[in-house]
Amino acid sequence: MHHCFKICRFSHTESVSSSSRETDFCVGDLNGPVGPAGYSCKKTVTVNDFVYSGLAATGNTSNLIKAAVTPAFSAQFPGVNGLGISIARLDLAVGGVIPMHTHPGASEVLVVIQGTICAGFISSANKVYFKSLNKGDIMVFPQGLLHFQINAGKTQSLAFVSFSSPDPGLQILDFALFANDLPTDIIEETTFLDAAQIKKLKGVLGGTG
Amino acid sequence: MHHCFKICRFSHTESVSSSSRETDFCVGDLNGPVGPAGYSCKKTVTVNDFVYSGLAATGNTSNLIKAAVTPAFSAQFPGVNGLGISIARLDLAVGGVIPMHTHPGASEVLVVIQGTICAGFISSANKVYFKSLNKGDIMVFPQGLLHFQINAGKTQSLAFVSFSSPDPGLQILDFALFANDLPTDIIEETTFLDAAQIKKLKGVLGGTG
Amino acid sequence: MHHCFKICRFSHTESVSSSSRETDFCVGDLNGPVGPAGYSCKKTVTVNDFVYSGLAATGNTSNLIKAAVTPAFSAQFPGVNGLGISIARLDLAVGGVIPMHTHPGASEVLVVIQGTICAGFISSANKVYFKSLNKGDIMVFPQGLLHFQINAGKTQSLAFVSFSSPDPGLQILDFALFANDLPTDIIEETTFLDAAQIKKLKGVLGGTG
Amino acid sequence: MHHCFKICRFSHTESVSSSSRETDFCVGDLNGPVGPAGYSCKKTVTVNDFVYSGLAATGNTSNLIKAAVTPAFSAQFPGVNGLGISIARLDLAVGGVIPMHTHPGASEVLVVIQGTICAGFISSANKVYFKSLNKGDIMVFPQGLLHFQINAGKTQSLAFVSFSSPDPGLQILDFALFANDLPTDIIEETTFLDAAQIKKLKGVLGGTG
Amino acid sequence: MHHCFKICRFSHTESVSSSSRETDFCVGDLNGPVGPAGYSCKKTVTVNDFVYSGLAATGNTSNLIKAAVTPAFSAQFPGVNGLGISIARLDLAVGGVIPMHTHPGASEVLVVIQGTICAGFISSANKVYFKSLNKGDIMVFPQGLLHFQINAGKTQSLAFVSFSSPDPGLQILDFALFANDLPTDIIEETTFLDAAQIKKLKGVLGGTG
Amino acid sequence: MHHCFKICRFSHTESVSSSSRETDFCVGDLNGPVGPAGYSCKKTVTVNDFVYSGLAATGNTSNLIKAAVTPAFSAQFPGVNGLGISIARLDLAVGGVIPMHTHPGASEVLVVIQGTICAGFISSANKVYFKSLNKGDIMVFPQGLLHFQINAGKTQSLAFVSFSSPDPGLQILDFALFANDLPTDIIEETTFLDAAQIKKLKGVLGGTG
Repeated sequence: MHHCFKICRFSHTESVSSSSRETDFCVGDLNGPVGPAGYSCKKTVTVNDFVYSGLAATGNTSNLIKAAVTPAFSAQFPGVNGLGISIARLDLAVGGVIPMHTHPGASEVLVVIQGTICAGFISSANKVYFKSLNKGDIMVFPQGLLHFQINAGKTQSLAFVSFSSPDPGLQILDFALFANDLPTDIIEETTFLDAAQIKKLKGVLGGTG
Repeated sequence: MHHCFKICRFSHTESVSSSSRETDFCVGDLNGPVGPAGYSCKKTVTVNDFVYSGLAATGNTSNLIKAAVTPAFSAQFPGVNGLGISIARLDLAVGGVIPMHTHPGASEVLVVIQGTICAGFISSANKVYFKSLNKGDIMVFPQGLLHFQINAGKTQSLAFVSFSSPDPGLQILDFALFANDLPTDIIEETTFLDAAQIKKLKGVLGGTG
Repeated sequence: MHHCFKICRFSHTESVSSSSRETDFCVGDLNGPVGPAGYSCKKTVTVNDFVYSGLAATGNTSNLIKAAVTPAFSAQFPGVNGLGISIARLDLAVGGVIPMHTHPGASEVLVVIQGTICAGFISSANKVYFKSLNKGDIMVFPQGLLHFQINAGKTQSLAFVSFSSPDPGLQILDFALFANDLPTDIIEETTFLDAAQIKKLKGVLGGTG
Repeated sequence: MHHCFKICRFSHTESVSSSSRETDFCVGDLNGPVGPAGYSCKKTVTVNDFVYSGLAATGNTSNLIKAAVTPAFSAQFPGVNGLGISIARLDLAVGGVIPMHTHPGASEVLVVIQGTICAGFISSANKVYFKSLNKGDIMVFPQGLLHFQINAGKTQSLAFVSFSSPDPGLQILDFALFANDLPTDIIEETTFLDAAQIKKLKGVLGGTG
Repeated sequence: MHHCFKICRFSHTESVSSSSRETDFCVGDLNGPVGPAGYSCKKTVTVNDFVYSGLAATGNTSNLIKAAVTPAFSAQFPGVNGLGISIARLDLAVGGVIPMHTHPGASEVLVVIQGTICAGFISSANKVYFKSLNKGDIMVFPQGLLHFQINAGKTQSLAFVSFSSPDPGLQILDFALFANDLPTDIIEETTFLDAAQIKKLKGVLGGTG
Repeated sequence: MHHCFKICRFSHTESVSSSSRETDFCVGDLNGPVGPAGYSCKKTVTVNDFVYSGLAATGNTSNLIKAAVTPAFSAQFPGVNGLGISIARLDLAVGGVIPMHTHPGASEVLVVIQGTICAGFISSANKVYFKSLNKGDIMVFPQGLLHFQINAGKTQSLAFVSFSSPDPGLQILDFALFANDLPTDIIEETTFLDAAQIKKLKGVLGGTG
């Protein structure tokens, strides 16, 4: 074990020559052409293309929602390109909320690592499914449905969420409606929200129009 | 032509015996077991399983949104079960609106048959894409993204929308938030809407909690 | 509404900078590399990439078949690239026919907008399914099967057909057999048609050999 | 080796109890419900569900086309159900022909085991691709395209063809057009063939109407 | 927050009547028919079908490998049925090892929650990729490749592993070779291992033949 | 027939101009970018892109395993790129063995052309399925599972194996473990093999570490 530890303290970085293409995977080349199935494949890869430490640190929760989503999608972690999976880290400070959102391209499984999280989703039949999750509990959110996570405890919460795609996308309802130049009257007509409410939230989120 | 017309005036209803299973298609048996890929296959089919007249009539637009969506998904039109496609009819009276919604399971292509429709969607990057569409124009809405259609003219509008799945699903934002028993305080925390606004729309849409 | 109409009279053409890649869609770059999943993604897109007016005009039916198929596949409408759907317009003059054909890569749903169309397909079990369709009727044609549409009425007919792929392909039987240099004796041996019949149709359709 | 031979002379038929479901495969239960993804899974399987001897014998080529196609699709060989692959045997006597046909649901790879075969296909662009294949040569036929195989030699030919689906389907052009009750006038209008030619082939192939 | 906590302390268990089928998901009915795409869908679901607490407890590592894999695949957690994702918990005591294994049906992403894990995989090109992972590090293992995890530290380790399928399968090399009745001489011939070594490991793992 | 023979003696090499892209297939451009779905498409193709003679010759079985696997995957036969299928040739001399291996990316169907082959696989449930196959017998090996083929007869054996992917991959157990620089102590810990056994096989297969 000690020996293995010594071995593993150093990356195993023997590179693959481009002459022998690896067909088991397709580490994304962020500078190459992108297609419907994802990024082009890097020609030379090492173990470091399959390992990512960007989720190790607590996300910055000093913000409006007292929460942070740190993704390891193919754009951040090209090793998952083409492999049908990705992951992200959720940090929720006390009072933190991941607001109502969808992932247009993937289903999600959440596992609670620390704290208590009130999580739920709404189906196409407008049924509501929510529950308080404790450490070690998992919950699945089917693809494309509105869902949310709320820190329901009195301590910082941590969860990891996995996705059935390397590019799940993330559409946060309030940002989609109020953080761009979608005209207020179109929002009014398509959401039945009052203009005052819309303008108030545009003010908070930096929307215009 | 006249002869063909005569022939075709009557359905060609020779049935397929269950002894020779058809493998090109799988007309849904709405009473059989359902799986992740869709309904079980009917054992005996006729041409009438592949034809549907449910979209021929104008939808009833005497409602809150002055609009109607009439689906021909696999539940209404079992002939598309397993074939990766479905269709629906949109009717928009003057002032009609198909409110902000998503299809969790499919991309959509809209074709305007009559009238003028202001249609748009919002991407995961919170960019807004909308335009006024006239008769014969088509627009594509990528899977799972919030989008809307508004009658932008002074006459009744008609469009057909096709989907890349026999079961695209339909999640209308206001119904998802305000037409069920999702607690008001959870909505507040996850959408930043004011309680008064939430209660007002719950009142309109029949929501509780 | 009037205001929205004004807004929508102008495209919403705010462009997306290539620095923030959109992962919800992949508008085809017709000049970039093409792969099995479709075209490479354009780096900068506007709403005009998602809207197409090429199906608005009646197709030219002054031809042998008195009919026209106007496609909006990914090559004509790159906005559908990678989204699993496309659409086309069918115009049939009186006496017009869309001859026996297949789409090797997609299932099809047809909706009749105007006129009466006698449509049908033949299954792998050699069963025939055809029926006369009126305005508003829809019919589904499973992937890869021979099918046809005939104007069965006394007026111009119009239909829109949607496909479960952005690149369904279109193989018209007569053009496949008689509009190229496939040797007559090979056609004879593989279709049992008489040489005279083959040569006659090659003459009409410009085939050689 | 001898020992292994002895072992293998007998099937290894230890059965799997239904209590421990195997998730690596789904041997088709031909009597259970069928869905878009294929047959239901048999609960108890043995090695004999994964082995099939139905392609060992030469097909009967005493017929019109002097050829035989012997399929091992999921209906004949339920072991391939759900696994995305199947296979068939082609026997062509001297002068034998596999007439123009398509597989609506799969691409095909042919390998010549014996004899010389003239094989080809036609693309959606109406381009013709054909070549004479000798023993050991392979050829691929993309999904859904018209293709054919002709014994181009002076001896019996044998080939195996594999498919990218357990249910590729097989639509033989002449049987689709002339071996059912598709009305002659519809065939005339959709293929431009002369009525006499159609009636002649209906006579040969048993078609009516 | 306190209020939400109170709400969430109790499951939201309003059930969905079977009359309105939910098409966004397909919670597995473990007693219904199974197909290539997974289990049949339960007709009535509650939030408890989407939440699972079976991964909350530390797995029992009092065994040969001083490690435990606790799966939440569709058989244990039917909520993921048909959603293209699943998850499992890895516990490694000091000196614990998840032996060389593959998942025939999925790619895997591992996130280290506690301790230090030496993890690696071998590609089809026989290249080795391994590294020592610390708390918060993630690593991806492409589908079907041999891989392993070793506790490389001096304390208990914990990781969660997500998969790109609800049924990834798990083939542990030693159990596949030595824990069944695969004849020793076949193992010898196909692995080049010495008979003595094979018999020794069969003895440890309960294999026969 | 004679005429067709003459025609087919020569390839039909009319090329497709890059101006009219073929959408039915995507012959791999081995020099272009590669993505998760495979190689980029060649712009100009001829019949020779769809035909391959590389499997016609007997593989060289003068080696350790007295056997040879000759692949026609997309890297050797770019015509299958994107078409979901590929093929390979197996030659087994007397005493020949295709050692225990997996295909991470595809299911396999084997057809015996000559000789007798003892073939088997092991499932995730550690069940063993093996049988002796004679000329014309076929066997299916589900994706990603360990399997083997042994010449169980007294003559040279020949088989063709087809795959449900153009890039199935091939991971031979002994090469994965003993033909690279995977450290002996890691192999020991993850396979429970004795160090002496590991070193012995590394010596045979050229492994280091």
